[in-house]
Amino acid sequence: MQNAVANYVVITGASSGIGAASAYKLASRGYNLILIARRAARLNDLKAKIHASYPNVTIVVRPQDLAIIDDLPKMYAQLNQNYAIKIWINNAGFGKIKSLSHYQLTEVTQMIRTNSEAVALLTTLFAKDHEQDNVQLVNVSSRAGYHVWPNTIMYSATKFFVSALTEGLADELRTKGAKMQAKVLAPNATATEFQRVAKDLDHDVNYADVFPKYNTSATLADFLIQLLNSDATVGLVNDHYELELSDSRLP
Amino acid sequence: MQNAVANYVVITGASSGIGAASAYKLASRGYNLILIARRAARLNDLKAKIHASYPNVTIVVRPQDLAIIDDLPKMYAQLNQNYAIKIWINNAGFGKIKSLSHYQLTEVTQMIRTNSEAVALLTTLFAKDHEQDNVQLVNVSSRAGYHVWPNTIMYSATKFFVSALTEGLADELRTKGAKMQAKVLAPNATATEFQRVAKDLDHDVNYADVFPKYNTSATLADFLIQLLNSDATVGLVNDHYELELSDSRLP
Repeated sequence: MQNAVANYVVITGASSGIGAASAYKLASRGYNLILIARRAARLNDLKAKIHASYPNVTIVVRPQDLAIIDDLPKMYAQLNQNYAIKIWINNAGFGKIKSLSHYQLTEVTQMIRTNSEAVALLTTLFAKDHEQDNVQLVNVSSRAGYHVWPNTIMYSATKFFVSALTEGLADELRTKGAKMQAKVLAPNATATEFQRVAKDLDHDVNYADVFPKYNTSATLADFLIQLLNSDATVGLVNDHYELELSDSRLP
Repeated sequence: MQNAVANYVVITGASSGIGAASAYKLASRGYNLILIARRAARLNDLKAKIHASYPNVTIVVRPQDLAIIDDLPKMYAQLNQNYAIKIWINNAGFGKIKSLSHYQLTEVTQMIRTNSEAVALLTTLFAKDHEQDNVQLVNVSSRAGYHVWPNTIMYSATKFFVSALTEGLADELRTKGAKMQAKVLAPNATATEFQRVAKDLDHDVNYADVFPKYNTSATLADFLIQLLNSDATVGLVNDHYELELSDSRLP
């Protein structure tokens, strides 16, 4: 993580949770930021908050719904042409906690497009341009992307997709001697908007009421930095809520 | 598999390979068929071939590109209203054998939509209507959906999605005491059009030139029947090219 000042980190799903905490943390390390999410107002609030602490960091706000797949190649091309991107973090995603038969069809398609298809497309685009560059791609999977979680099976499936694609790419890049590194961050329960969205609630959830133990978004941002600073492919948060850095985990 | 005569089996990707072989085999067991694939002419040829052997079987041909997600709810509703569907087999899918950076973007989106999103949507629709019915859903994954295959990582990711979703659904149905069963068929190398499509060739591949050992589509159709007749959740073709019936395999 040298020469950071001239370099940009892209974070999708940056308006809240792990994405927002990671933006703040990476700004503290001198990285310039490109923040992507649907909610422009939230991104601008975050930009102001980060600038209050780190006025010298350049922050680009790019409102975009990642489920609108047709928009993504143009968005990627604009960012890639205008900024020297050092790290690309595909963090946007959401889950639903309910039986499959209770899903609305739009929930199925939105979840697959946001969690899997957008990640696959942006990963492919970034690999095409930067395979031979000293860059990192981090795809945020989940503990549920290594273990099928009951009552959250659609989310698990989308995250298994992310784990397999990213581990496969990491191996592919190593095999061909490419400089680009691909990594998976797999959080366990983390206090974010996840539970509110997953349960269709109109208020935030107190994680202490739901989980005997959990991480904060700030802790996950620390874990992300550890993963970036390591040669590991996978950073998985285990059942003790500690980060386990390892090579690929899937068979 | 009693009372078969009045009952229909839906097979997607029925125009060739495992889908076509399974259609033929299920007709021999007295099932009526609903055959779905892009290529209407191939479906009609198959229908004629099956009728030559089994004239009493009713065969419905339904041309549809499964990557066109917006068409699927209407297609499903029409079939579900008009036919007593006993078994739904999501078999359509394809892979590409190449490095991720060599993918065209349309290959990424078409593969994810055909292999994962269409399967998720049709699985959800079938579960909504038939959770309490004595029916079976079989999603065709792959050996690559349990093991990340090098140079085929996008395909592996789409198939990990299928494995996780279907195993998760099987557990969910058991937990709630539902009558519907969800199962995964995970083929190993099988002589089909897979290699031709995966390598962008204009001629079929002689599997004996590529694999020291492989299965025929007819063998996979036999494996499918064994899976349907069992209480297993997963039918995986192992490295000896034999069928292994088991409970869920993912953690």
